[in-house]
Amino acid sequence: MKSPLLIDVKFDTTRKYDGFEKGVKGRQIINLNAGEEPEDYSAIEYALVWQPEPSLLDKLTGLKVLFSAGAGVDHIFSAGKLPDVPIVRFADPTLTTRMSEWVCLQCLSHLRQTYKYIALQRNRTWQELPQPEASEINVGIMGMGNLGKDSAKKLKTLGFAVNGWSRTKKDVEGINCFGENELDDFLAQTDFLVGLLPLTKQTTNFFSRDIFEKLKRNEEIASPVFINGGRGGSQVEADIVSCLQDGTLGGVSLDVFQQEPLEADSALWGYENAILTPHAAAISDIAALGSYIEGQIERFEAGKELEHVVDLKAGY
Amino acid sequence: MKSPLLIDVKFDTTRKYDGFEKGVKGRQIINLNAGEEPEDYSAIEYALVWQPEPSLLDKLTGLKVLFSAGAGVDHIFSAGKLPDVPIVRFADPTLTTRMSEWVCLQCLSHLRQTYKYIALQRNRTWQELPQPEASEINVGIMGMGNLGKDSAKKLKTLGFAVNGWSRTKKDVEGINCFGENELDDFLAQTDFLVGLLPLTKQTTNFFSRDIFEKLKRNEEIASPVFINGGRGGSQVEADIVSCLQDGTLGGVSLDVFQQEPLEADSALWGYENAILTPHAAAISDIAALGSYIEGQIERFEAGKELEHVVDLKAGY
Repeated sequence: MKSPLLIDVKFDTTRKYDGFEKGVKGRQIINLNAGEEPEDYSAIEYALVWQPEPSLLDKLTGLKVLFSAGAGVDHIFSAGKLPDVPIVRFADPTLTTRMSEWVCLQCLSHLRQTYKYIALQRNRTWQELPQPEASEINVGIMGMGNLGKDSAKKLKTLGFAVNGWSRTKKDVEGINCFGENELDDFLAQTDFLVGLLPLTKQTTNFFSRDIFEKLKRNEEIASPVFINGGRGGSQVEADIVSCLQDGTLGGVSLDVFQQEPLEADSALWGYENAILTPHAAAISDIAALGSYIEGQIERFEAGKELEHVVDLKAGY
Repeated sequence: MKSPLLIDVKFDTTRKYDGFEKGVKGRQIINLNAGEEPEDYSAIEYALVWQPEPSLLDKLTGLKVLFSAGAGVDHIFSAGKLPDVPIVRFADPTLTTRMSEWVCLQCLSHLRQTYKYIALQRNRTWQELPQPEASEINVGIMGMGNLGKDSAKKLKTLGFAVNGWSRTKKDVEGINCFGENELDDFLAQTDFLVGLLPLTKQTTNFFSRDIFEKLKRNEEIASPVFINGGRGGSQVEADIVSCLQDGTLGGVSLDVFQQEPLEADSALWGYENAILTPHAAAISDIAALGSYIEGQIERFEAGKELEHVVDLKAGY
């Protein structure tokens, strides 16, 4: 009999949850969020979590693999002492595709000045705005993992000039890549800054005024734009607001926030050139997650290496 | 000495007009819109027009090549008797790229429910909406010339399922293509209908309630959307408004209108799920237009075939 899968996933999984069970091919699911409980926590070998209860990890003394329900794992790191087992992130094409949809939409929206045209439409005003084309805009992506690479490829196809930055310099065809010590160079070339960074000690509060002031200034073409699809903890929202106010930033697109849900009194809600989405850029497809986990467990039990294992030292 | 180029281009060419002169490499320009006039109209061999004065074409008895300042030529056909010379459309990468930017932006905006999130933001409401991914949406492009093919390729890269329809069935890698007699099949598969048709007798008033009612009904995923980057004369705006009202259409993106500028009292301005732009999807890049024309004249004078010559019978 298959070893059961314990679930503690604190986000809305209503829409496609049915598909998950099909994905794990008959494996028993014990869903804490549905009020289910295992007879013996110490007998659980596989668990799937998102923002798990801190006490949970302590109880899982027989755990063999811990699965994250998303690409990020900071929600596990902040939940207390880590179990001494491999932590596997969710890296499926669905999640990647959806993040790229969101990133491409945001870049095109700022390129084509969507919020200005919406304001003109509201006033029933027919007015054409001066318009650079994508090739005149340099999109700089910070974080060149699966998500960053896929976004880079798609933005390039759309015609944007694309640079990529990552702590460990990557080699990606057609993309000009920068490493840890080339940050200022990278920023000085960047019109649209796309954040796809994991949340670590180094990236906490990283996207601040200091960074935004180093972005390319070419206001005839476009004021700098900041787009964050990574983690809210990486950004300083007070700085974002003040940079929108004084023009250091011409616009932002934010899917993530320092505190989620974003507080109703945040000034960000009120800016037309701030495009906000409620951490919805790339929700995990629950059906795909099921078959992904099942595939990984099959690999693990066949003695093969697990894929997309988190590097505990790097923190992602 | 180079034969001069007569210009009668009735749209705003302020932004990049300087580049045009560079593009034509010293060729004399006689710009009617700037109050200039040729000494002898019958000596003019090359003319560049957009919505030309009807009387102009009659006067150009020595014309050798007529250039359109855009991809469409209906603005010439409606200007009176055509001169018996090749008419060359503007088909440059810039124009194609910009149209694809617009088409991809519109498809992503409807996919990701931009206007609903804008309304939520206005109310400072954090709420995630159910979300299909691009692969669940079938974009059907009508008109598979340069613009349609490029849009199809880019939408495909973004993850959309893409079909193409054209009067003469095309063969495009990775795209399921339909021909003249397969229209109903094509419409029945289409979630997002993209119009990139030239304006001809056949396409006048084509996009009407009758067509919209034949689109795919799968409201759990997405109500049908109509996106027109072609010509306003192809659409029946009264039908669009009534289809938005009764839900036959879930949204529209329109860059072109039956009368331009769109009248201030058009009901279309008032719909949040109608995304309007002022015939700005793919304005010709004046700098690129200059070098394009110069290249064509060089070909012509060297005895080579002109490119992108309009088929007078087909009307585009």
